[in-house]
Amino acid sequence: MDFSERFPIWGKLTPSEQKMLLASVSLRTASKGTVVHKGNLDCSGLLLLTSGQLRAYILSDEGREITVYRLFEHDLCLFSASCIMRSIQFELFIEAEKDTEFWLIPPDIYHRLMEGSVAVANYTNEIMASRFSEVMWLMEQIMWKSMDKRLADFLLQESSIEGTARLQLTHETIANHLGTHREVVTRLLRYLQNEGLVTLSRGVVELKDEKALQRLS
Amino acid sequence: MDFSERFPIWGKLTPSEQKMLLASVSLRTASKGTVVHKGNLDCSGLLLLTSGQLRAYILSDEGREITVYRLFEHDLCLFSASCIMRSIQFELFIEAEKDTEFWLIPPDIYHRLMEGSVAVANYTNEIMASRFSEVMWLMEQIMWKSMDKRLADFLLQESSIEGTARLQLTHETIANHLGTHREVVTRLLRYLQNEGLVTLSRGVVELKDEKALQRLS
Repeated sequence: MDFSERFPIWGKLTPSEQKMLLASVSLRTASKGTVVHKGNLDCSGLLLLTSGQLRAYILSDEGREITVYRLFEHDLCLFSASCIMRSIQFELFIEAEKDTEFWLIPPDIYHRLMEGSVAVANYTNEIMASRFSEVMWLMEQIMWKSMDKRLADFLLQESSIEGTARLQLTHETIANHLGTHREVVTRLLRYLQNEGLVTLSRGVVELKDEKALQRLS
Repeated sequence: MDFSERFPIWGKLTPSEQKMLLASVSLRTASKGTVVHKGNLDCSGLLLLTSGQLRAYILSDEGREITVYRLFEHDLCLFSASCIMRSIQFELFIEAEKDTEFWLIPPDIYHRLMEGSVAVANYTNEIMASRFSEVMWLMEQIMWKSMDKRLADFLLQESSIEGTARLQLTHETIANHLGTHREVVTRLLRYLQNEGLVTLSRGVVELKDEKALQRLS
C-alpha cells in the first residue's frame, strides 16, 4: 500500500495538493523503545502508521510517566507536529512500543495544506477531537476509578491488543502506563494473584480469569 | 459592540457567510447557577461570551465534579455544540458561574460554515487546541501535584479573577472545582489557617499571605 491509499482524505485533495504531499512524505521506521517525539521543542512532522504501535505519555519533573493514548496501524499522530498550531501548549512524549513503520509528513507541508484545504482542516479537527476524547476518558478514569479497577482494565486492554493472556510486562512498565509507583502495582498484582485472577512470574503477568477481571474493572 | 465586532475571524468570512451568521445568532443570558450544557445529548450551539463566566466540568456517577476549564468575556464555548463533530465523545457540563451574556450560534449554521470555510475550520482547530492544552495542564496538576498545592493555586487564581483577597466560597464549591471531597478541603484550609496563610469564616476564605501561598503552589 502506498501513501495515497493510506491517507484517509486523499480523494478530497486537489491534484496539486496531492503532488505536493507525495513529493514531501517519506517512509520511516522507529525501533521498539525509540522516543520519536520529545515535547514541544520537537516538531518532526505528522506520522501516519503503517505498522507497529506508539504510546503518547506525559512526564513529571521527577521522571514519572502516564500513558495518555496509543496509536496503531492507520492512525495519524498529530502532536508530533505540535508546532503547526500555536495553541498546542503542552509537553507530550511519544515512544515506539513496538518496531513501527510510518509515513512522515513534514510539518510545514501539512500546515500549508491545512491553510489551503477545508478538507484537511476539518480532518485535523476530527483527529484532535478523537485524542481529546481519549484524554477526557483517561481523566474520568483517574478521577473516579480506584487503581485496582484501572489495573484490571489495563491488563484486559493489553491482552486484547497482544492477542494473548500471557503478557510480557514488568511492574515498572505497568506503573508508567498508569501513572503510579511500581510498589503500588506490585501490591495490587499480588492481591489479584491471591484472588486467582492472574499468575505472576518474572516479567510476565498471565491472566487466569478474564471474566472476574471484567467484573472488577 | 455587536456580533461582527465580537467574532474573532469576522473579517475572514465572505459577505454571504457573514449574512448567514448574522441572521442566525441571538443574544442570550444565563443567570448564575444555570447549567447551560448537559453532556452530549445537549447541542444548543456555540456561545461567544460578552460578559460573565462559565465553568466546564465533568461529573461522576456519584455526583462528584471537577472543573476542567473556565470561559470568560471574548471566549468561544465550542463543546456546547459537541454534535458538530462526531469525534467529540465525552460528557461535559457547562454552568454559569456568574450572570452571563453570550451570542448563541446555532450548531447547524456553524457546522455549515466549518464545512465551507477554511478560516472557520482552522479557527475551530485553534479553539480546540487551547481547551486541549488546558485539560492537559489539569491532568499534570492531578497527576503530579499534591492537593495542598492545588488548593493554594486555586485560591490564588480565584483571587486574581475576582480582584479581591476575600473570596466568597464554600468548602463544597472548592471541592467541586478540585475534584475532591469537602472534608479534604476543610482539613487543608484549617492547615493553611494554622500556618497564617488564610483566615476562614462562614462561606468566606480570606487570603492573608499571598507570597506564602505562591511558594506553596
